[in-house]
Amino acid sequence: MRAMIKGAYQTRFGELWDKGIKELMLEVGKGAMKDAKVKVEEIDLVLVSNMLGSRFENQGHLGAMATSLLGIKAGGLRVEGACASGGLAINQAVTAIKAGEAKTVLVIGVEKMTDKRVEEVAQGLMGAASEEERRAGLSFVGLYALMARKYFKEFGAGKKDLAYVAVKNHNHASMNPKAQFPFEIDVDKVLGSFCVAEPLGLFDCAPITDGAAGLVISKRGKDKRSVEILASKVATDSPSLTERKSLLELEATKIAGKKAYKEAGIKPDEIDMAEVHDCFTIAEILAIEDLGWVKKGEGFKAVKKGEFSLGGRLPVNLSGGLKACGHPVGATGVKQVVEVVTQLRGEAGGRQKKRARLGLTHNIGGTGGTAVVHILKKL
Amino acid sequence: MRAMIKGAYQTRFGELWDKGIKELMLEVGKGAMKDAKVKVEEIDLVLVSNMLGSRFENQGHLGAMATSLLGIKAGGLRVEGACASGGLAINQAVTAIKAGEAKTVLVIGVEKMTDKRVEEVAQGLMGAASEEERRAGLSFVGLYALMARKYFKEFGAGKKDLAYVAVKNHNHASMNPKAQFPFEIDVDKVLGSFCVAEPLGLFDCAPITDGAAGLVISKRGKDKRSVEILASKVATDSPSLTERKSLLELEATKIAGKKAYKEAGIKPDEIDMAEVHDCFTIAEILAIEDLGWVKKGEGFKAVKKGEFSLGGRLPVNLSGGLKACGHPVGATGVKQVVEVVTQLRGEAGGRQKKRARLGLTHNIGGTGGTAVVHILKKL
Repeated sequence: MRAMIKGAYQTRFGELWDKGIKELMLEVGKGAMKDAKVKVEEIDLVLVSNMLGSRFENQGHLGAMATSLLGIKAGGLRVEGACASGGLAINQAVTAIKAGEAKTVLVIGVEKMTDKRVEEVAQGLMGAASEEERRAGLSFVGLYALMARKYFKEFGAGKKDLAYVAVKNHNHASMNPKAQFPFEIDVDKVLGSFCVAEPLGLFDCAPITDGAAGLVISKRGKDKRSVEILASKVATDSPSLTERKSLLELEATKIAGKKAYKEAGIKPDEIDMAEVHDCFTIAEILAIEDLGWVKKGEGFKAVKKGEFSLGGRLPVNLSGGLKACGHPVGATGVKQVVEVVTQLRGEAGGRQKKRARLGLTHNIGGTGGTAVVHILKKL
Repeated sequence: MRAMIKGAYQTRFGELWDKGIKELMLEVGKGAMKDAKVKVEEIDLVLVSNMLGSRFENQGHLGAMATSLLGIKAGGLRVEGACASGGLAINQAVTAIKAGEAKTVLVIGVEKMTDKRVEEVAQGLMGAASEEERRAGLSFVGLYALMARKYFKEFGAGKKDLAYVAVKNHNHASMNPKAQFPFEIDVDKVLGSFCVAEPLGLFDCAPITDGAAGLVISKRGKDKRSVEILASKVATDSPSLTERKSLLELEATKIAGKKAYKEAGIKPDEIDMAEVHDCFTIAEILAIEDLGWVKKGEGFKAVKKGEFSLGGRLPVNLSGGLKACGHPVGATGVKQVVEVVTQLRGEAGGRQKKRARLGLTHNIGGTGGTAVVHILKKL
């Protein structure tokens, strides 16, 4: 028995000064239930994904908060695995449905980040990394910069190669009215932006974002707007880069990806479109390689050729990705699935991929300590 | 198909100056796997319950941290629902086993609290409550004090009646070498302690504690040390006292309890021993009433008579409870189950309940926003 996605909703991503965690959860909960055409009484479990509410707003206990806000009489809890929290919550929803513990699950991913100073956000995000890395004074962009330098050295790539990822994702975002940065940029803009952690400049980095996304997942429903979850797989690795065998790949991505392809019974090149975890441009290059769409070390060439752009063989991050749609960390993994559902339903407007039947999402926690891969199919 | 508890382990509870979250997770993970006689390779999911690590230590992403520390190649994630996090993690473990998503799950509940100043801890714990309650300057003890005052007014109880709960639980803790406060106290000691929030004095309150507890839950294994999980039920309510119909009962406890009795196919008075959420003495009185062991308004009389003491008809909090064994919030719900397993196995030493066949645990988040009830049976 496979779980179905019945409803999907995303708030606008960006600096939402007038909305807190509560308002975002309320909007997204109501939006997802309305889209699914389910009543409050039908929801029998609520899963909330959030990373930083307890640290930034001193608001934990979001499962009970969500059920109470929405008037849902059911169990509720929060799931956290850093920036992979959203993917993990969906995985738990699928598990609850398979177990027969719930028939209709509401998943809410939410994060409120822009009320804090950028230094506080950078520090909070390092909660996804290890104590050793924090003690070494590293930041997340610093950790991904290390991976980029290693990649450059090994495969002869450079800053300009990464820039094409940012250009592509901004182009996609320019067609997404929910995106934080719905505008195009060019390679010179990326290369001319200030350095954050060599070789990564400002436009290599996903922004700090407020936002929420929601899904209604059910065991029933085979109407034509339903989307089937063919596979939901989680893998972990050390959260610390110092303990990895290689900086050129994320083992957790490879394991979760292989398990997902196996469960779905498909090969990597059957995927029609995907949302991958591009918290930094280098992260998207690693992802498209680790998910089996290009050979290791050749991802940057394929991006440059347009293979992963709208109109290419396998469009990646049509939402704009974390880079240009925005990255409210607890919401990201849920938003990725919302985008794939929107594409498979054929409701993505100007950024619609033609003939999309199979979609994939790839959500990462930290520098690869957690990876969650979902494969979705149009009914 | 019902899930089985194969292994159980608890660290000493208290002020553990020499141990951080990592050391506690390592000890408890190894301890639970050793007790279950399972190998690292057999674990196919790790669930970590923790409330405050992200706020106090800036350490999130504990699922990946735990798998990495213990060398487990499997998925991992953190579950949070304030002080009910532990019960929720066990519930998710049972769900994963029922779904066939995992065969053997390691649950680790962990909290590190004593490194912070008491004011910071009190503030952090208010993350389990609502924004309105924080803005009103309320603390958790203040919220439970409101419930106690209402209870006193309605049922004619007083401070001395609550004191018997603390005396009983300290007596039980005096026989538990893992307890934070393994010593007896008398009623005068409780009544003479300084007031924290009228009518609750120092000895009406659970302490601030470091500690961890772990379980190995499996679908297999019918050896004589295995314990069967007959029911695992979650209910939510508003996290905010202002939105409750009554301050005299916790609706979430009543709903989770009724569902659990129904699923287990038993009546309340068939339970032989229980661990209930006595974060404050009044909380235990409400729990024994809401779980159906005495009529509403008569719990305090039954405690005074010794009905819930070792040797009484239904011993409650033989571990010492949150009050005297200690309350490391993310670990508490797991520790409760560890204690029931220890009792059902007949391995509880001086505090052993004779002829214990059915045990119950009751874990609360905040002032009752979440309730988790487990019913366990000796094989």
